[in-house]
Amino acid sequence: MAPQKTTLAEFEAVFPKLEELLVDEAKGINLPPKYLEWYKQSLETNAVGGKCNRGMSVPDSLSVLLDRSLTSDEYFHAAALGWMTELLQAFFLVSDDIMDSSITRRGKPCWYRQEGVGMIAINDAFMLESAIYQLLKKLFRSHPRYVDFLELFHETSYQTECGQLCDLLTAPEDVVNLDNFSLDKYSFIVIYKTAYYSFYLPVALALLQLDIATPKNLKTAEDILIPLGEYFQVQDDYLDNFGLPEHIGKIGTDIMDNKCSWLVNKALAIVTPEQRKVLEDNYGRKDKTKEAAVKALYNELGLEKIYQDYEEKRVGEIREMIARVDESEGLKKEVFEEFLSKIYKRSK
Amino acid sequence: MAPQKTTLAEFEAVFPKLEELLVDEAKGINLPPKYLEWYKQSLETNAVGGKCNRGMSVPDSLSVLLDRSLTSDEYFHAAALGWMTELLQAFFLVSDDIMDSSITRRGKPCWYRQEGVGMIAINDAFMLESAIYQLLKKLFRSHPRYVDFLELFHETSYQTECGQLCDLLTAPEDVVNLDNFSLDKYSFIVIYKTAYYSFYLPVALALLQLDIATPKNLKTAEDILIPLGEYFQVQDDYLDNFGLPEHIGKIGTDIMDNKCSWLVNKALAIVTPEQRKVLEDNYGRKDKTKEAAVKALYNELGLEKIYQDYEEKRVGEIREMIARVDESEGLKKEVFEEFLSKIYKRSK
Repeated sequence: MAPQKTTLAEFEAVFPKLEELLVDEAKGINLPPKYLEWYKQSLETNAVGGKCNRGMSVPDSLSVLLDRSLTSDEYFHAAALGWMTELLQAFFLVSDDIMDSSITRRGKPCWYRQEGVGMIAINDAFMLESAIYQLLKKLFRSHPRYVDFLELFHETSYQTECGQLCDLLTAPEDVVNLDNFSLDKYSFIVIYKTAYYSFYLPVALALLQLDIATPKNLKTAEDILIPLGEYFQVQDDYLDNFGLPEHIGKIGTDIMDNKCSWLVNKALAIVTPEQRKVLEDNYGRKDKTKEAAVKALYNELGLEKIYQDYEEKRVGEIREMIARVDESEGLKKEVFEEFLSKIYKRSK
Repeated sequence: MAPQKTTLAEFEAVFPKLEELLVDEAKGINLPPKYLEWYKQSLETNAVGGKCNRGMSVPDSLSVLLDRSLTSDEYFHAAALGWMTELLQAFFLVSDDIMDSSITRRGKPCWYRQEGVGMIAINDAFMLESAIYQLLKKLFRSHPRYVDFLELFHETSYQTECGQLCDLLTAPEDVVNLDNFSLDKYSFIVIYKTAYYSFYLPVALALLQLDIATPKNLKTAEDILIPLGEYFQVQDDYLDNFGLPEHIGKIGTDIMDNKCSWLVNKALAIVTPEQRKVLEDNYGRKDKTKEAAVKALYNELGLEKIYQDYEEKRVGEIREMIARVDESEGLKKEVFEEFLSKIYKRSK
């Protein structure tokens, strides 16, 4: 039997079982019934409804590592770990949306903007985080790597928070100051805010589930998945400006939103003083004409080509790292090849 | 050597060592230096500066349990656990202040209202929480009860979040609906939002540090400290209205703030329909005349005497429970007597 890929439907079918465990816990302490409904609503609205790429990559990685399809018990536990990854993301997205004053999430108003929610969303975010540790306790307390699961979630949370802090302080919504930006800070933000929880975490979880999370395997996974995650985010920033709206499903707004994007950081690294003035005068303003001036400068600087060269170089390096993976402790190159194939040359 | 009580000065002297451990961690991942300063500022403003009753009760309980003064290593570890309790509280206070639109905290503007902070405070709150697990890992990873420490903090966080959810949904700032209130909900809120982290957590931590956190000892501690914590909060609500401002150091505002206070819940349980109308018409309004009407009703209902009877009954029950404590597994009655003596008949 070859490895098998999970589907969103299969993955989502696991969620109600986890929700039941969580709701039982709240019932157990006699949370008033009306408030149980609130909690369920928060879980369903905030954890479910995304593409679940991160969550699904736990069972997918597990299947690749075992080189076969999963038993129903293996799948359930891997999917549960995947859902914990999604809960961690939900914890961050609910609160990021407040911090960024975002309007919509997954095509609906952000949770904090829904009727009657407001700042209660902060406490709801905390409860999404707590759900991770309740599920770990219920489903993995007798697993030999239980402590490592706990520490991995703690560490990943901390890394993501550090990335978010750096992002918030580097690119505040309302103050445009390009002196704050740099490619170093950009790397810090994308690695800590995104790459650890989106790329390293799911694979580390699969390695822990199989109890093959040796120091060497974890180090290999980190060494490959962090650059891969960084590349993914650079590509995301590239697509925000150069992607086709009909492919990426939205119209990019990074320039007007004063985002600390790879493009503006790359531009800042190569501009003449005159070109820098164009950026200073036009970046981060809610104004279509100013946005067009920045877009014109990006074209003048040849950022599209610079990105394509970056992509080829980066992907080449990652492929080399994958080729050198030592599989003697149970890790498989194919885990990383799967991730890379989903990302390389994507248009959406 | 008899048990020895810690002082705020001794306890606060431990904090810089813990802060150094935390800052080293952030330096280790190359958080930009300017942002390290932000993190230190958040730690110092939000974790330090309170009375530290909760935190100090960890070394105090430890000393009582050992019936001697502590070695410097014992004191350091107990104080570290005490500071983790304070960090947990800081995590909640920073976010509660946002959720409650509070203005000041410890005589200064709330963290989210300080210059340049705003909603970044949400992420700062997360980082205060993460600090707990970093300190546990650094200082207790080889402790035989490491997993229990982790689970205790997870469980206490979850309990506090459930209490906060119930509080937020029962007594929203802006909507007065006394039908929402009940003594049952009141109990749920004070037990979960306050009693677990303020009373049970510090003692459970001391028991874990000594590795005498047997199921029986934990159950005894919970059975006594939760009613004690509930009584403490009832007393707090009583003092908000009946205490002397020169004793409690503030002028109570629970009536105007629509607080789900013990007094209003007790009143609702015994009012005539006419008296209930007085509450309906006057409770939770930012209006001194309406507040006076509620205060007059409280006097008419004899709530002061009702509280005093409650206090005597409750304290009697708690004293009986303390008298029955089985000390055979290393627990000591004196741990609870210390807590009770600090609370009974306090006027501030």
